[in-house]
Amino acid sequence: MTPAQLSELFARVRKNHPLVHHITNYVTVNDCANITICAGGAPIMADAIEEVAEMTGIVGALVLNIGTLNHVQIESMIAAGRKANELEIPIILDPVGAGATRFRTDTARRLLEELEITILKGNVGEIGVLAGADGKVRGVDSAGLTGDPVEIAKAFAIRAGLTVVVSGATDIVTDGRRALLVENGHKMMGGISGTGCMAASVTGAFAAESGDTVMAAAAALAAFGIAGERAAAVARGPYSFKVALFDELAGLKPDDLNSAAKIRSV
Amino acid sequence: MTPAQLSELFARVRKNHPLVHHITNYVTVNDCANITICAGGAPIMADAIEEVAEMTGIVGALVLNIGTLNHVQIESMIAAGRKANELEIPIILDPVGAGATRFRTDTARRLLEELEITILKGNVGEIGVLAGADGKVRGVDSAGLTGDPVEIAKAFAIRAGLTVVVSGATDIVTDGRRALLVENGHKMMGGISGTGCMAASVTGAFAAESGDTVMAAAAALAAFGIAGERAAAVARGPYSFKVALFDELAGLKPDDLNSAAKIRSV
Amino acid sequence: MTPAQLSELFARVRKNHPLVHHITNYVTVNDCANITICAGGAPIMADAIEEVAEMTGIVGALVLNIGTLNHVQIESMIAAGRKANELEIPIILDPVGAGATRFRTDTARRLLEELEITILKGNVGEIGVLAGADGKVRGVDSAGLTGDPVEIAKAFAIRAGLTVVVSGATDIVTDGRRALLVENGHKMMGGISGTGCMAASVTGAFAAESGDTVMAAAAALAAFGIAGERAAAVARGPYSFKVALFDELAGLKPDDLNSAAKIRSV
Repeated sequence: MTPAQLSELFARVRKNHPLVHHITNYVTVNDCANITICAGGAPIMADAIEEVAEMTGIVGALVLNIGTLNHVQIESMIAAGRKANELEIPIILDPVGAGATRFRTDTARRLLEELEITILKGNVGEIGVLAGADGKVRGVDSAGLTGDPVEIAKAFAIRAGLTVVVSGATDIVTDGRRALLVENGHKMMGGISGTGCMAASVTGAFAAESGDTVMAAAAALAAFGIAGERAAAVARGPYSFKVALFDELAGLKPDDLNSAAKIRSV
Repeated sequence: MTPAQLSELFARVRKNHPLVHHITNYVTVNDCANITICAGGAPIMADAIEEVAEMTGIVGALVLNIGTLNHVQIESMIAAGRKANELEIPIILDPVGAGATRFRTDTARRLLEELEITILKGNVGEIGVLAGADGKVRGVDSAGLTGDPVEIAKAFAIRAGLTVVVSGATDIVTDGRRALLVENGHKMMGGISGTGCMAASVTGAFAAESGDTVMAAAAALAAFGIAGERAAAVARGPYSFKVALFDELAGLKPDDLNSAAKIRSV
Repeated sequence: MTPAQLSELFARVRKNHPLVHHITNYVTVNDCANITICAGGAPIMADAIEEVAEMTGIVGALVLNIGTLNHVQIESMIAAGRKANELEIPIILDPVGAGATRFRTDTARRLLEELEITILKGNVGEIGVLAGADGKVRGVDSAGLTGDPVEIAKAFAIRAGLTVVVSGATDIVTDGRRALLVENGHKMMGGISGTGCMAASVTGAFAAESGDTVMAAAAALAAFGIAGERAAAVARGPYSFKVALFDELAGLKPDDLNSAAKIRSV
């Protein structure tokens, strides 16, 4: 993976405006819609069982987020996910709060079992729980993990047959064979609600334009992280940071990934 | 319709703070609430079947938006709409994504059949689909129309007995007899989620204060568009544009419509 | 209650990051999440019956808000509230729109009967309706009250066995024995959607860290109000005010409560 490949992928997202279908929580859904646009994609939010499969049939990626889960939504996730699998559309799963309640843990596991998830993106606590490692979750925030997160993520990626993204100060992206660390970002991203959800949306837009899911996820996280770095430089506090985060991602040029992405293999 | 009439209508909205009841999607609902306030109205969001008719009974306008449709919400829309019809309260319907899925197309048609909609506001693709013209929809975005949109909108307005608003770079407002073009606005309005939904909210506030629905819709779209023009002048990117869009609409004076509205008959 | 106690409480919130579980409306939920973080807490939004009790079991406070009520959500509120009562976790109830529809009034009364609410926070119209005084509600906004709101709030607090917060230009906080007036805030807080909901979230974060609910509510409202005063000084309009409101609360130092809080006993 070369810097030029990252830029080319980002340029494709910006040119093709891939549709990203979200079945997501009602807390950060507006942020997810807007960040998808800023990345270059086009968001669709639809969760009614009557239409999710049809909607998934026309998109480039499907993002499933269990942040405000309910039993109606689960069935829609399964229906949309089956359609995505049938059409080989990448699915990004964000298991928000897995480990915090049985309902979330069980639902995340069910989605992993019944669907072929392409990219599983969570914080270290959520991934730890789902990987069967000793993940600790405090509400919907991670409270750490016992063990080396890179090794846990690699082993889980191979066992589950997907790409695992562990978000954090340094993001880990691995399909079990390759493992990349993405060191872009800023701590202010943790000072607002929704940056984790937004990262999944951006990842969806990139995954829609590349069959190399490890590269797509790393490129998406780098782009989002660079926007965060630039936003932090102009922010007066968390919400002006949020405003700037959208502005900066929208203003980011594909070529900026060449110079500013901090991605390394481990 | 004179510029003075536009200003007088806007001044009435600002003075009377009409209640605008929304049954709308969970993606842009906060934006709809805030833009209603910035226009001069007072938003109410309520969608439970137990209360929608009672809530509609006290408001100046009802806005129905199918952006994140589900079958429970449809029944609430019908119940609220019947109450609005009984009390002759104007209903604005925003058929988000009609044409994208059968569920949305069928629901928009059902609402048009079972209720007397006052103003139908959509993009050219959505209106094209509902008018039986060759509307093209990509997700929830318009992908164009075969034929002259003004003529299609006029014919559809007469056939359906309502005012049609076709949103776009130039907005079309017609009841079939009169047709107005509103040329205010800025392309940055297309760079964020929710401006279409917000336009319907502002239209609701104006329609609550005037029986002339063509004028009300045109005045609302002009006011919203002028705010967009002014916001674009100070924005650093899409989200600072969004912040400024609310600020500018709130700061807009009724008299500004005199000088800045670009409305012409065709 | 001394200024030093207010600062100490705020410092505890900032140090301990109490989890605040919200079962709330979909209009202002994102604002509630972000303002909780800015205050120093950690928000959890979860409303599925399958998980609400388990989620409540791990938090410091529970906020119930009936802004977009439905019958499914009521059962979740009851289940979460019972768990909170069992564990003696404070519950803050925001009866949005009580008095506007029978459904809201009845639900607010039911929650007050079936649960031991710790703090009931509403505008003067909502509190008036629930207190059996002559509260007037226009949609979800207050339209006034006949009688002295302090006396009505005190009598109701004693009768219902809880702390009553009446929000307004001057906030009233009383458990019937003590009554405090909080005179911080700015009229721009009334120019955006959601400040009432946000005040309840901040109150939740403070109540999680103090058994003195009168002090906790007053300290929370003072902190939020000071942020509003500071935000108004830099705002260009309602939405830049909103952005600054979050920034200013996040930047507020516990010691600032010493000098800037305007709380007096009556």
